[in-house]
Amino acid sequence: MKEQEFLQEVKEIELLNSALGLLEWDSQTGMPEAGSEFRGETVGYLSGMSFERSVGPKIQEALTYFETHLEELSEVGLAVYSKIKEEYELNHSIPPERMQAYTTALTNAHSAWLKARKEKEFDQMKTEIQTIIDFLKEFIPYWKKDEATSYDVLLNQYEPELTVEKLDKIFAQVKDGIMDIRATIAEKGTAPRTDFLSRTVTKEQQRTFVTGVAKDLGYDFSRGRLDDTVHPFMLDLNRNDARITTRWDETNFSMATFGVIHEAGHGIYEQSIDPKYDYTPLSTGASMGIHESQSLFNEIIIGSNKQFWQKQFPFFKECTEGTFDDIDVDTFYDSLKETKASLIRIEADSLTYPLHIIIRYEIEKMIFNENVSIYELPKIWNDKYEEYLGIRPENDLEGIVQDVHWSGGSFGYFPSYALGYMYAAQLRHAMSKELDMDTILAGADYSPIKNWLTQHIHQYGASRKPNQLIMDATGEELNPQYLIDYMKSVYYDVYKIDE
Amino acid sequence: MKEQEFLQEVKEIELLNSALGLLEWDSQTGMPEAGSEFRGETVGYLSGMSFERSVGPKIQEALTYFETHLEELSEVGLAVYSKIKEEYELNHSIPPERMQAYTTALTNAHSAWLKARKEKEFDQMKTEIQTIIDFLKEFIPYWKKDEATSYDVLLNQYEPELTVEKLDKIFAQVKDGIMDIRATIAEKGTAPRTDFLSRTVTKEQQRTFVTGVAKDLGYDFSRGRLDDTVHPFMLDLNRNDARITTRWDETNFSMATFGVIHEAGHGIYEQSIDPKYDYTPLSTGASMGIHESQSLFNEIIIGSNKQFWQKQFPFFKECTEGTFDDIDVDTFYDSLKETKASLIRIEADSLTYPLHIIIRYEIEKMIFNENVSIYELPKIWNDKYEEYLGIRPENDLEGIVQDVHWSGGSFGYFPSYALGYMYAAQLRHAMSKELDMDTILAGADYSPIKNWLTQHIHQYGASRKPNQLIMDATGEELNPQYLIDYMKSVYYDVYKIDE
Repeated sequence: MKEQEFLQEVKEIELLNSALGLLEWDSQTGMPEAGSEFRGETVGYLSGMSFERSVGPKIQEALTYFETHLEELSEVGLAVYSKIKEEYELNHSIPPERMQAYTTALTNAHSAWLKARKEKEFDQMKTEIQTIIDFLKEFIPYWKKDEATSYDVLLNQYEPELTVEKLDKIFAQVKDGIMDIRATIAEKGTAPRTDFLSRTVTKEQQRTFVTGVAKDLGYDFSRGRLDDTVHPFMLDLNRNDARITTRWDETNFSMATFGVIHEAGHGIYEQSIDPKYDYTPLSTGASMGIHESQSLFNEIIIGSNKQFWQKQFPFFKECTEGTFDDIDVDTFYDSLKETKASLIRIEADSLTYPLHIIIRYEIEKMIFNENVSIYELPKIWNDKYEEYLGIRPENDLEGIVQDVHWSGGSFGYFPSYALGYMYAAQLRHAMSKELDMDTILAGADYSPIKNWLTQHIHQYGASRKPNQLIMDATGEELNPQYLIDYMKSVYYDVYKIDE
Repeated sequence: MKEQEFLQEVKEIELLNSALGLLEWDSQTGMPEAGSEFRGETVGYLSGMSFERSVGPKIQEALTYFETHLEELSEVGLAVYSKIKEEYELNHSIPPERMQAYTTALTNAHSAWLKARKEKEFDQMKTEIQTIIDFLKEFIPYWKKDEATSYDVLLNQYEPELTVEKLDKIFAQVKDGIMDIRATIAEKGTAPRTDFLSRTVTKEQQRTFVTGVAKDLGYDFSRGRLDDTVHPFMLDLNRNDARITTRWDETNFSMATFGVIHEAGHGIYEQSIDPKYDYTPLSTGASMGIHESQSLFNEIIIGSNKQFWQKQFPFFKECTEGTFDDIDVDTFYDSLKETKASLIRIEADSLTYPLHIIIRYEIEKMIFNENVSIYELPKIWNDKYEEYLGIRPENDLEGIVQDVHWSGGSFGYFPSYALGYMYAAQLRHAMSKELDMDTILAGADYSPIKNWLTQHIHQYGASRKPNQLIMDATGEELNPQYLIDYMKSVYYDVYKIDE
């Protein structure tokens, strides 16, 4: 087995995945709905083929051979080998017939979730969710390597080397920090004016503004595109074709504005990965958490920067053709940073968002490490919302059935979202030592910011682990204090609190 | 080998082709250009896989087994078997290394064609075209079965059972007929007024009109979609996802109007194929010629019908918001049917169009049956344009290098376009015996026309040969007189000629 032969096999799997990517993009953007049954057949066939190849004889042979011939691999070859080995061990360890049964269970759970949403009742899906949990509990021993707890195994599938032990401390600190800020705001804060946020901004006006901003931030439209969809996402077919989507609301322009800024962050990441990783599984983000750090860097670091809005607000005014002539930039800026407890995660503001994640984390941990009964989950959920956010869902649609993740088997995924926030704030802190971000964001050329991120994060793709990237980029391990400090400075400023 | 196993193999090849279809559609509608190298790799890999499967061991085994066990096949299975057998014999007969070399020659010829267009000189591509011709001459003996001449073999790849012997007679009749009509018009005709055809109609106005018309004609937008492209086409991923494209010119609305009507005809065909042929190579048109008969039925039969425009013109006026208030329907109708000799095939009107095809047919026949030298082709081309149309190209871009077909190896393809015209006129004649087309087209419900075409043509997909379809639908073999009579009636009316 030569490296070249190994990389050719890897490339062919990547080519299949790239076709699957386009099929997925098309399903979510433009496919006539009537075509969905045919589409399901095509996707099922190609993804089956991709999976079979990824655990097939060629890959097996390569893994066996290079285990004792590592010296024959180039730098890229070695990184690809490590990644493929990890994926192989994850995929190959489960008996195929159990994996098949699990896939069926996921389909059932998705239908049950839709029903539960409709009925606003967790009861409608609890049997199916229990089945998913049972499958994962069956699979965890197969996946387990050095992890201390069952839930660690799930966490690691989304964020390598993350543990409950670390997260418990980190989330305790984040929770306390946010609760403090919220208490201070409640006691002494002056809420910003927000009435004008619902003024009509046409889709075309929004598009002109936000594509201009995305370009400024470094998203390359000649190597991507922006389409309409119900659930916004970024999907990369390759580094020269990293597409983003959004949805528009003409009486809530901030949704698409921050949505596109967010997805553009994902897109810039993919567009900036070193070409030497083309056609390998390294030509993508390092983890869910690191990917989210890049979208959130755009959305909550740059998007919460006053100088950035000083620069962009005149352009926004121009695009909206007079609609905001009576609003000055400070009033506008403050309105974007209102914070308010809410029941729905995807509608949460950037201060309260991590609390939504922490609630999910605590419940997932109870499920896998403490065997809590499924019957107790809705009450636990509602109690935690009352405790952390001071509000209580009136039904399960406002509560435990709002997210698709659990019915999709994605237990362990939610923490990535909060990691993204913390990474973003920590990267900002490190970047600020080298760059004068305020001056850059007030100016016409944002490229130093993008270049810093490319140099420290993007270029490596998935060839380095999150831990290492953060350590190398910031000089220390994940430290949630940067997020807390940053939130304090932003929200105390908006809510006119002197400390 | 069971029929089910055979059909499963066929289905998997179709699923690959369906993914390839989407990749092609995307390349032509929305892919960022920078992604084209990656796209090329994906398409190359999947099309290689599809080809290998189509001549692979499972297909071979099925063909061998069922050759002596035809009785084990269902009706659909038998039709699929026949189709697969044909394709296999076409694909498998050429030595793979020669096919590979041919593919490379096609790539070179395409580049040479682009250069020849730029330089407006056939010289720039003659070596590469000669290579393509040499390859085809080498392949023809492998493909040849009962055909009388070399060129028959090529014709048959696009229109089964068509021969030079038949076409010579048919085209002679068509040529004489058109030349007569043109002479009469030149002598006695009054040209219609056309100045208002260049009035500005915005893309959105055009879109509103033409999507309304396409819907009336029976194109189902819930099982298709309309996108923008440089070269308009219809592409079917399956019968529930048959997409059409167009390009728009705001000072020439008739281009997109007739373009969309044309492509909708292709789309309606694909949308109306019997579901029993799903996931088989029968779920597509019977031939290029039959496919073109459906698009041209829309474009030149319905689109040249006065009652149709009586019905649609008020809607056109409404869509164009006053731009045509001074034009009455008769003036409008006449303007759409102006005829004028032109050098460029794709800009030709429906009367002169077949002459463009006949010129290409005669030259292709000379190349393959009479071994004419490539050096003589530009002069032959220009002489024929002068003889048949009375105009002579000033350079090769206006002449022999205008079309992509030859550099793509598609010798034998052009006649299909003319067959489409003749089939369409013949189908009109047959339909008129059962339906009062004028009354239907003047009314609100066009479905009887679409249903007639579905009953006689669409539903069969590729399970029947063109000959048989035309014979069953019209009661006779291809008869070009219907086209000549029809052209005479349309153009003499527009040009105010009483006979």
